[in-house]
Amino acid sequence: MTGTAERAPVIRVGDKDNVAIAVAPGGLPAGTRLDDGTVLTENVPFGHKVALGDIEAGQPIVRYGEVIGTAAGPIRCGGWIRESAVRLPEPPALSELPLATRPAPATEPLEGYTFEGYRNADGTVGTKNVLAIATSVQCVAGVADHVAGRIRRELLPRYPNVDDVVALNHTYGCGVAINAPAAVVPIRTLQNLVRNPNFGGEVMVIGLGCEKLLPQTLMPAEAEGGSLLSLQDPAFTGFGAMVDGIMETAERHLERLNGRRRQTCPAADLVVGVQCGGSDAFSGVTANPAVGFAADLIVRAGGSVMFSEVTEVRDAIHLLTPRAADAEVGRALLREMAWYDDYLQLGGADRSANPSPGNKTGGLSNVVEKALGSIVKSGTSPIVDVLAPGERIRRRGLTFAATPASDFICGTLQLASGMTLQVFTTGRGTPYGLAMAPVIKVATNSVLATRWHDLMDLDAGRIATGEASIADVGWELFHLILDVASGRKQAAADKLGLHNALVLFNPAPVT
Amino acid sequence: MTGTAERAPVIRVGDKDNVAIAVAPGGLPAGTRLDDGTVLTENVPFGHKVALGDIEAGQPIVRYGEVIGTAAGPIRCGGWIRESAVRLPEPPALSELPLATRPAPATEPLEGYTFEGYRNADGTVGTKNVLAIATSVQCVAGVADHVAGRIRRELLPRYPNVDDVVALNHTYGCGVAINAPAAVVPIRTLQNLVRNPNFGGEVMVIGLGCEKLLPQTLMPAEAEGGSLLSLQDPAFTGFGAMVDGIMETAERHLERLNGRRRQTCPAADLVVGVQCGGSDAFSGVTANPAVGFAADLIVRAGGSVMFSEVTEVRDAIHLLTPRAADAEVGRALLREMAWYDDYLQLGGADRSANPSPGNKTGGLSNVVEKALGSIVKSGTSPIVDVLAPGERIRRRGLTFAATPASDFICGTLQLASGMTLQVFTTGRGTPYGLAMAPVIKVATNSVLATRWHDLMDLDAGRIATGEASIADVGWELFHLILDVASGRKQAAADKLGLHNALVLFNPAPVT
Repeated sequence: MTGTAERAPVIRVGDKDNVAIAVAPGGLPAGTRLDDGTVLTENVPFGHKVALGDIEAGQPIVRYGEVIGTAAGPIRCGGWIRESAVRLPEPPALSELPLATRPAPATEPLEGYTFEGYRNADGTVGTKNVLAIATSVQCVAGVADHVAGRIRRELLPRYPNVDDVVALNHTYGCGVAINAPAAVVPIRTLQNLVRNPNFGGEVMVIGLGCEKLLPQTLMPAEAEGGSLLSLQDPAFTGFGAMVDGIMETAERHLERLNGRRRQTCPAADLVVGVQCGGSDAFSGVTANPAVGFAADLIVRAGGSVMFSEVTEVRDAIHLLTPRAADAEVGRALLREMAWYDDYLQLGGADRSANPSPGNKTGGLSNVVEKALGSIVKSGTSPIVDVLAPGERIRRRGLTFAATPASDFICGTLQLASGMTLQVFTTGRGTPYGLAMAPVIKVATNSVLATRWHDLMDLDAGRIATGEASIADVGWELFHLILDVASGRKQAAADKLGLHNALVLFNPAPVT
Repeated sequence: MTGTAERAPVIRVGDKDNVAIAVAPGGLPAGTRLDDGTVLTENVPFGHKVALGDIEAGQPIVRYGEVIGTAAGPIRCGGWIRESAVRLPEPPALSELPLATRPAPATEPLEGYTFEGYRNADGTVGTKNVLAIATSVQCVAGVADHVAGRIRRELLPRYPNVDDVVALNHTYGCGVAINAPAAVVPIRTLQNLVRNPNFGGEVMVIGLGCEKLLPQTLMPAEAEGGSLLSLQDPAFTGFGAMVDGIMETAERHLERLNGRRRQTCPAADLVVGVQCGGSDAFSGVTANPAVGFAADLIVRAGGSVMFSEVTEVRDAIHLLTPRAADAEVGRALLREMAWYDDYLQLGGADRSANPSPGNKTGGLSNVVEKALGSIVKSGTSPIVDVLAPGERIRRRGLTFAATPASDFICGTLQLASGMTLQVFTTGRGTPYGLAMAPVIKVATNSVLATRWHDLMDLDAGRIATGEASIADVGWELFHLILDVASGRKQAAADKLGLHNALVLFNPAPVT
């Protein structure tokens, strides 16, 4: 799907669309005449939809060429389509979807693009060189934070090639139903987090000693010279001894990490995760299509792209199953959708609670409209694989990594899956950032990009104003990805040191 | 229940017990002769159980005068009772329990004990004077941390009567099923957290602007001069302006907090939460009975005590329902047990996954033994009220505040319920601490108290060695509580600055 940017002040994406989006900052006043002759009968806020013809009660409301709902009552031509005017349709039935029916688009391989990365023994390539202090249980989080702070202040200055030290704190490990069926998700996530390419294969685990999640289960089989310390080890007399012991161990890892150097790697070694948060009606016509364009470039270069957020692709799943590379991948997509349907239903979740109030204020009527705008981040490549939450990436190309849409859980799961750089689009604005991998934030509209000039990395709002095409911004993003992955440019969140905590997905009970 | 400390090297609590606990550091070797004539047939590890007579297969194993399980096979007199030798009994059926049948024990009011606290407009009394920065959504956590750091460095030195500034970060607010039935728990928790007496009624909420949990829902009706900022507010151009805006607002609150002074308050104004974590076989005979003794003193002084941890009282619930002050309180106890039974069953949780491996290594065979040892923390007072997770405390005396046993979730929920000081017992050892309220850590055994000399506040292991009685340590703890609540003494975790993050209980799905 590509947005054909018409002249401001409205954007209409698909030929069959009977709505358009008001893109003038401040919205459009009643009486505005659009290019197609439609005259606005009332004020339409920025980012909201205007009817391009009369829509009778029960008739479909079409955006992106897809039905986003039906009219709850008659909507007159030129009227503002409020959230309450749109009836939410049922999600596509999972039993009747075409699998792997769409031929892969004919594309040329993209050659000659490189970045400066840290190559690991297992062939993966990091974009940063970070000492990660893994923890097997939340009980040790206070100590891990304390030690990470001391390492940053006292040791890092002596190891200039090491970018950072991060404690992989979380809220799992004990006080949880460790044998419940769904416990596989958080455990797998923690096991794969330590293997993220940005940590250079140096594994250091701090446990308590009496936790349910045994610390040694976090030590990868392939880890050479990994270290494991438990605070309850009788060797540690008092807090001071614990800290000294951890610092000494950290120093061994820092020495090895410090010996590493960036080297020129093909763009094929990129593992980029894409995500959106705080979306608005522009997300689907500016930033997300540009991200999709860049995703296609990465795939053409032989690299890996992950897209995610089950609850935000669920209502557009009928557009994804045809893109599965084969029927098995298609069935895996359905499996993840069905798992989430059950999970939400068990918890009595109300599907209408997504979009958020802010999404709605931003002009997104419902989760169907949000989903249609969300999946364009995946570009047009075939989907070569599907990961259950927290599984490690297995194939190059475009992978669907199943995660909740929660920004922090999605980020954590993508890190576990091996993502080394994330692209994050936002329309309402969020100061999101991760310490473990750079996050490039793309604003969907220029109002946000201007106001949050130091929090956003790229302004895709220029697509709405006609200043740039989707391809322009897509290429710009692709080059920015290569620059940030090489350490040549810093993402806004990293410049400011704004980082969010990891959040595990634990669908099992706590005890 | 009170432990009658016999001479080392074993402890037997109840007259009907057919097991005793090895209390000699390093355990007891085969051949050791006990005072009752029992000769050990094998080595029994420290904290583990020895059979005081032959126990045939299927016969009850009795500790604390209660059946903790049945023998899986014949156990000979003097034998070590391994975890595998104990069959887990069914939990007490909730339908057949006696409610409010036990007359309240005759006790004298305890008068004349005071502490130096911060009295609030609503009559509650804080033990600290802390500026809390509440957050309505996890998206703002990075900014809240950044600002809290700057306030601590740049503003706090000018407001010497303010103890600290803490960001109430959490993982809720968006990307969650906000309308699911169980969402009431995390929302109520966040609403009540800001009302904790240690925050002096100064409410400052930072929101994003597009989150599902509307920031204004965190503003208590009674809050005077509360402030609410949203990062997406168009007034903030860039990160610098956001930070400046928050700092300015913080300063208004700091000025008011700085005007407060500690004043002498009766012990009746204490709200003490009790909890255990990393338990061992000593927990139930040393630290927990001492905490129970101190809890009785606080209740006799007219104060409030909360005990919690549903999964660790569930198997001893038949000992609690008779202590309900009336049948309504008894039914509320059953309601919370039944809710948790359902919650665990829905998630396919295995009851045998509690105790943790460390608990088992420490000598606790199963959750029944753990529960019997856990509930003694509640002392002997009638249970006057039952709180659903995150509800605010309503009555003085002993309250059961229903929470998971997870240390961090329990701590967070007790804070929301209004706890201003926590007593935490541990046998295996945990560096647990909270920034919002002091935590006094009581070691169940002297081995831990000695090794973790700077992490523990009190050694209840002296009860096992005969150096001190339960009453001695109970009184000592009571005085320590008054000292710490007055700011005269600092808890070990506060001295070291070791604090764990808040962890919400969210039984509803994420989206």
